[in-house]
Amino acid sequence: MDPKAEAATKPLAKGLPAGPGGAKGMIVFTAQDAVDWAKQGKKVILVREETNPEDVEGMRAAQAILTARGGMTSHAALVARGWGKCCVVGCSALEIDSRAKTVETHGQTLREGDWLSLNGSKGLVYQGEMPMRDADESNKELEAFLKVCNAVRKMGVRANADPPEDAARARRFGAEGIGLFRVEHMFYGKGSEQPLFKLRKMIVSKSLEERRAALNELFPHVKSDIKATLKAMHGLPVTIRTIDPPLHEFVPHEAEKLQELARALNIDMSELERRAHGLRESNPMMGHRGVRLGITYPEVTEMQVRAIFESAAELQKEGVKALPEIMIPVVCVETELKNQFELIAKVYAEVVKAKKVRSIPHLVGTMIEIPRACLVANKLAEVAQFFSYGTNDLTQMGLGFSRDDTGSFMGDYLEKGILPADPFQTIDQEGVGELIKIGVERGRKVRKDLKIGICGEHGGEPASVEFCYNTGFSYVSCSPFRVPIAILASAQAAAKARKK
Amino acid sequence: MDPKAEAATKPLAKGLPAGPGGAKGMIVFTAQDAVDWAKQGKKVILVREETNPEDVEGMRAAQAILTARGGMTSHAALVARGWGKCCVVGCSALEIDSRAKTVETHGQTLREGDWLSLNGSKGLVYQGEMPMRDADESNKELEAFLKVCNAVRKMGVRANADPPEDAARARRFGAEGIGLFRVEHMFYGKGSEQPLFKLRKMIVSKSLEERRAALNELFPHVKSDIKATLKAMHGLPVTIRTIDPPLHEFVPHEAEKLQELARALNIDMSELERRAHGLRESNPMMGHRGVRLGITYPEVTEMQVRAIFESAAELQKEGVKALPEIMIPVVCVETELKNQFELIAKVYAEVVKAKKVRSIPHLVGTMIEIPRACLVANKLAEVAQFFSYGTNDLTQMGLGFSRDDTGSFMGDYLEKGILPADPFQTIDQEGVGELIKIGVERGRKVRKDLKIGICGEHGGEPASVEFCYNTGFSYVSCSPFRVPIAILASAQAAAKARKK
Repeated sequence: MDPKAEAATKPLAKGLPAGPGGAKGMIVFTAQDAVDWAKQGKKVILVREETNPEDVEGMRAAQAILTARGGMTSHAALVARGWGKCCVVGCSALEIDSRAKTVETHGQTLREGDWLSLNGSKGLVYQGEMPMRDADESNKELEAFLKVCNAVRKMGVRANADPPEDAARARRFGAEGIGLFRVEHMFYGKGSEQPLFKLRKMIVSKSLEERRAALNELFPHVKSDIKATLKAMHGLPVTIRTIDPPLHEFVPHEAEKLQELARALNIDMSELERRAHGLRESNPMMGHRGVRLGITYPEVTEMQVRAIFESAAELQKEGVKALPEIMIPVVCVETELKNQFELIAKVYAEVVKAKKVRSIPHLVGTMIEIPRACLVANKLAEVAQFFSYGTNDLTQMGLGFSRDDTGSFMGDYLEKGILPADPFQTIDQEGVGELIKIGVERGRKVRKDLKIGICGEHGGEPASVEFCYNTGFSYVSCSPFRVPIAILASAQAAAKARKK
Repeated sequence: MDPKAEAATKPLAKGLPAGPGGAKGMIVFTAQDAVDWAKQGKKVILVREETNPEDVEGMRAAQAILTARGGMTSHAALVARGWGKCCVVGCSALEIDSRAKTVETHGQTLREGDWLSLNGSKGLVYQGEMPMRDADESNKELEAFLKVCNAVRKMGVRANADPPEDAARARRFGAEGIGLFRVEHMFYGKGSEQPLFKLRKMIVSKSLEERRAALNELFPHVKSDIKATLKAMHGLPVTIRTIDPPLHEFVPHEAEKLQELARALNIDMSELERRAHGLRESNPMMGHRGVRLGITYPEVTEMQVRAIFESAAELQKEGVKALPEIMIPVVCVETELKNQFELIAKVYAEVVKAKKVRSIPHLVGTMIEIPRACLVANKLAEVAQFFSYGTNDLTQMGLGFSRDDTGSFMGDYLEKGILPADPFQTIDQEGVGELIKIGVERGRKVRKDLKIGICGEHGGEPASVEFCYNTGFSYVSCSPFRVPIAILASAQAAAKARKK
């Protein structure tokens, strides 16, 4: 956004700066409208109460995303930042009426088609079309500068990247591996129609037989995606996290999709609705997800692990060096890991035999994102070959702040000085940081060379990067666009520590 | 249940004894019916194939819960036991047809409204109304036995008791105070119609003015209830917790109630729906609740604290020794406490002046239920005069287990040996216990004589009571019916420690 024009204009409203950069567009209120209008060549801003995975296509089509609710790690914020897209969230002064297609703020009413301009770096919303300015692209200077940084820094920098295109971009930006590849990414956005449908069949399956059939259909999608990413990152490690979110998140809401699903499963709608209803949770963030799914449905872990090992074995034969690191999320007790690792070892032996390879280099490790995991890190380190801190969830549970619900009080908390900063933006070093330190200390007591990383969005935030360096992390990982920042912050931390 | 009557009657069916105690009520088949019938003052038993989180309100409203499916750690069993509610699960002889509203067993058909009696300690189901016996009937042997226990034990035992009747019962059972009086109790169950309506007005208020008006209406209800409890406990401390649950929990679902509310606020239905919708949260357990409400709406804390101080001052003049201990829930950072304590001090000065008393004895303290609170206990202890561990929430967030959603995996976790016991039944000493210990240690480092208690349901479970004793707790607090167990367990812990 042009700074002069901005200085001369009063913002309409203020929210959280969830996706940096500027953007302008016409207001639309549904993901479908965003897609339709964009197809007609119109620039749009998607304005929503909050977003969910069903909005992803519309979010992609929009110039920017604006939500009334949610914090710095809400769905909208995470998705937008991963894409490097402008985004303002938690703009609580907006009163959105998506039926009437109006949004009201401070007495003013805006309608569908009205222009808005957003400053995603400051969280500001302007009425009308503000002049924009391209970000300065002086790649050579940046490259030279990062070279200097790389000579100074000691801690590794990886990227959180899902589709193979992102992996390639991350590499260009200087990432030394992928710190977070989320298997579930392939069920969101472009090209996800087919795998998502098959995932849905798996989710609402009742019997092991039904579920196995759906998993078999899903397998080729998961494998081809993982294989492409491992290939793009040849020679560099790729941390692959098994399916993490609560399954209900993937259940469709539209009647049409539900009917299609019922037909495919050969059950009637009321039965499907009953099954879908049974998946609903009061607090899904603390529900049946991550490793808990792997324990209750071992076949789900098995399918993913098979896809990883088969990909790696096949690439090995093609002369590509694949380095998968299998990561289990939401772990809070070592028995969960032991259970899953036994399963992984079983699949490993099967694939090695079937693919006739001598071995498949890989690591198995755990995310550390539940407070309890930090306290029993010594026990976890007895089995895990690496830790990766999921600081989004660790912040949620450590502080009891649901990241989708902080919008209602975070503003007051910052304004009244209750908190010095939004803990989803920069690590709460006193609280969450203390948990992290306990985990690092206890983990390394048992396994001296334990590889420790971070894959929460904090991994690209300078103060948090410095904290990670000082706490002895092996690497940080963040969205591709933030990799240069992480490289710089890591170099600064090393330089600062040397001075002392 | 009366043992003589029971011995003379043949049970209709047998299931698993999931929630001890006896209960009788009329059969209802849906959670909504349970809520509606209970509001009309009817005693009901909720009969379901199995329960899920959406049934929770109905389960709360029912005298007891009976399910055809599920084991000792099914959703129904977990929830009921958490509440100390009578429950029989896995009663597979029942054939429930919830559309026809009938339940068949061994050839007999029962209908909605028919009476059932349950023995939740033995898992037995009886037709009709069996005579019940209160567990608090004077039992000389028990009294003598508890006297021996009391001579041995060192740790205090209090009760979690809300309505004044419960306070009296707790006293009879030997409780040395109330460890948890929840202000919100007066919005649930019998006699709650009026205060609940006023609370709802407050909740959906938009402006400070609207909210203050609703709070003023609410004040006399809150005060009279608190005063009666303080009076019943004269000479013994009463820990009063300010409103804790997420506000959306109180928003009505029925169209009729919504209309009534809209009329009272002089707004139209679409506006009310919009306000109610705005309160909805993705993970309410980690949302806008507890102290967070007190920070964003200081007037809500103020009203409650005024009710407490006015009650205590008036009782003082009547010669009753009131010992309120004001407790702030969901605290995770010391600035929250400082903010609320300043407010409390202001109200205190006003009431002392208005009521013309020299002073009003009281304590101000905090619940410790967020993992972060344990880590910064030293800072909290600088302001708080006591800690009370809310181990239900600490377990939820420490392990990332939403207690309403563990039904889907807890069975598997116990069966496969992932966990040795349900952490909501007995404290997870290795994880949650470690957090508790860190909190006690850090808190007492700053304030040596810090009073430390527990008010989660674990306070009445023997192994957890022993843990509390060994960790240096001043007292445990549990539901009145479990007080004798807590007294015994506390004596055993002291005896065991002495032997070593």
